[in-house]
Amino acid sequence: MAKKKQQTPKDIFNLMMATDFFSQWLGVELIDVSEGFCKIQICIRKEMLNGFGIVHGGVTFSLADSAFAFASNSYGKVSVSLNASMTYAKQGKIGDFLVAEAKKLTLTNKTGTFDVTVTNQTTEETIALFRGTVFRTEKEHIDLNIT
Amino acid sequence: MAKKKQQTPKDIFNLMMATDFFSQWLGVELIDVSEGFCKIQICIRKEMLNGFGIVHGGVTFSLADSAFAFASNSYGKVSVSLNASMTYAKQGKIGDFLVAEAKKLTLTNKTGTFDVTVTNQTTEETIALFRGTVFRTEKEHIDLNIT
Amino acid sequence: MAKKKQQTPKDIFNLMMATDFFSQWLGVELIDVSEGFCKIQICIRKEMLNGFGIVHGGVTFSLADSAFAFASNSYGKVSVSLNASMTYAKQGKIGDFLVAEAKKLTLTNKTGTFDVTVTNQTTEETIALFRGTVFRTEKEHIDLNIT
Amino acid sequence: MAKKKQQTPKDIFNLMMATDFFSQWLGVELIDVSEGFCKIQICIRKEMLNGFGIVHGGVTFSLADSAFAFASNSYGKVSVSLNASMTYAKQGKIGDFLVAEAKKLTLTNKTGTFDVTVTNQTTEETIALFRGTVFRTEKEHIDLNIT
Repeated sequence: MAKKKQQTPKDIFNLMMATDFFSQWLGVELIDVSEGFCKIQICIRKEMLNGFGIVHGGVTFSLADSAFAFASNSYGKVSVSLNASMTYAKQGKIGDFLVAEAKKLTLTNKTGTFDVTVTNQTTEETIALFRGTVFRTEKEHIDLNIT
Repeated sequence: MAKKKQQTPKDIFNLMMATDFFSQWLGVELIDVSEGFCKIQICIRKEMLNGFGIVHGGVTFSLADSAFAFASNSYGKVSVSLNASMTYAKQGKIGDFLVAEAKKLTLTNKTGTFDVTVTNQTTEETIALFRGTVFRTEKEHIDLNIT
Repeated sequence: MAKKKQQTPKDIFNLMMATDFFSQWLGVELIDVSEGFCKIQICIRKEMLNGFGIVHGGVTFSLADSAFAFASNSYGKVSVSLNASMTYAKQGKIGDFLVAEAKKLTLTNKTGTFDVTVTNQTTEETIALFRGTVFRTEKEHIDLNIT
Repeated sequence: MAKKKQQTPKDIFNLMMATDFFSQWLGVELIDVSEGFCKIQICIRKEMLNGFGIVHGGVTFSLADSAFAFASNSYGKVSVSLNASMTYAKQGKIGDFLVAEAKKLTLTNKTGTFDVTVTNQTTEETIALFRGTVFRTEKEHIDLNIT
């Protein structure tokens, strides 16, 4: 029982990342995580490019989506994505570092909406804006993961 | 000059795929492509899963986004994504085959909007619905790619 | 108690419309309603135009949003909008009849997503595409409205 | 010719509002307008309510959409909406003042994306978040409106 109160946003991030093989493939590195917030980064590799020689929109979305998942699950409740939208502003190239910062916009007992800004650290440009909504289940991460 | 009229949607798909390293990583296989239409599939591998043991939302989005790119570029004009939205319905698991079918909704000289339905062939369920809008540039694929 | 089972989608539509003063202002007329489905129409009046002399995007959205509300509430559970997106294709002019047809895309115990197509009956063109997601509360219309 | 350089964002707002009969019906009052920015307000009246006795989602969207139109047209180029998304957070009631503030997110020669935040001044809550994308035509407002 006492252990239940000790699960921090960082603990939840670590538990999720341990089996999040796609975020691992993306090379996600944690910069910061707290309740309703997550900042992560990746470096664009050759296998992340599309046919125009720039980062594939799906990779940029995936980075934002991972930040969104970590931020929305940070409260302890297992939260699943209902929908998301993505607006593209600029491009990213091989070797560029992309940072995604997810912040809570609204939160109720059952749902939450988060904004994620994706910045190209190399060019110092905002490259994409993501907005996503989760359904917050009754399940707690602590119950899923205690072994 | 005469060659210009011979570039088909399939030619454009092949030219784009040849250097679309992320779609290659996803294992994209073409089912069908024509003007304003594209149907492709992938098989979910372990490195496409998220921390809940199901396909990462970013992978499903990426599959839809690739179908959208091939359908919107099929007319010959280089077309770039402005924005997209994604609604999730069901999940996909390791070994499942996912099919994305992109269809034109609206098309003007400068912009176009496409719907993409992602179906899990293994469970016969619609797992996600994608809607995206492109800006259609003045550049032609034929001019980019003739060597 | 027996009365509970007799509330049809049409009953719910009528109960909602009775105090939906904005849908009344729009001049909403019912064409058809059933579980997860609603088709309504309006005629564009002068006070619905924007500064370009065409129907204001907010009016087209509102028509779609009303169809969405009627379709998503048709099952009996009070359902509230979480988010919605709108894609514009063509225009509407004064005197044109616009028809909105809402259909269920996905439905779970707690959430639902619906597509609404807005057609200009006068020009026979699809003028807009709406997609919205509701949260389905535990409240029943029958409990709200029995008097 | 000299007159061309004298058309300010306020001039464009006034020209658009003069025939924007739906914004007039909403009771739109200007708080501030400048290049890529617009802040307007309305007061919720009885005929703006839905069947749940709160402000109809279409009215909140329409307010945001008008702010978006004024901000995106403020540069002088006639700009038309391609698509928009809306996230609902809180409600508004009869007599509440709603303020919409539109800000540029991205701008290219041909397209632009804007965020609009709708705040309930009465409750001091953010009630909705809107994001919209325009196509920027070659037409100038100054050419449309000189008489």
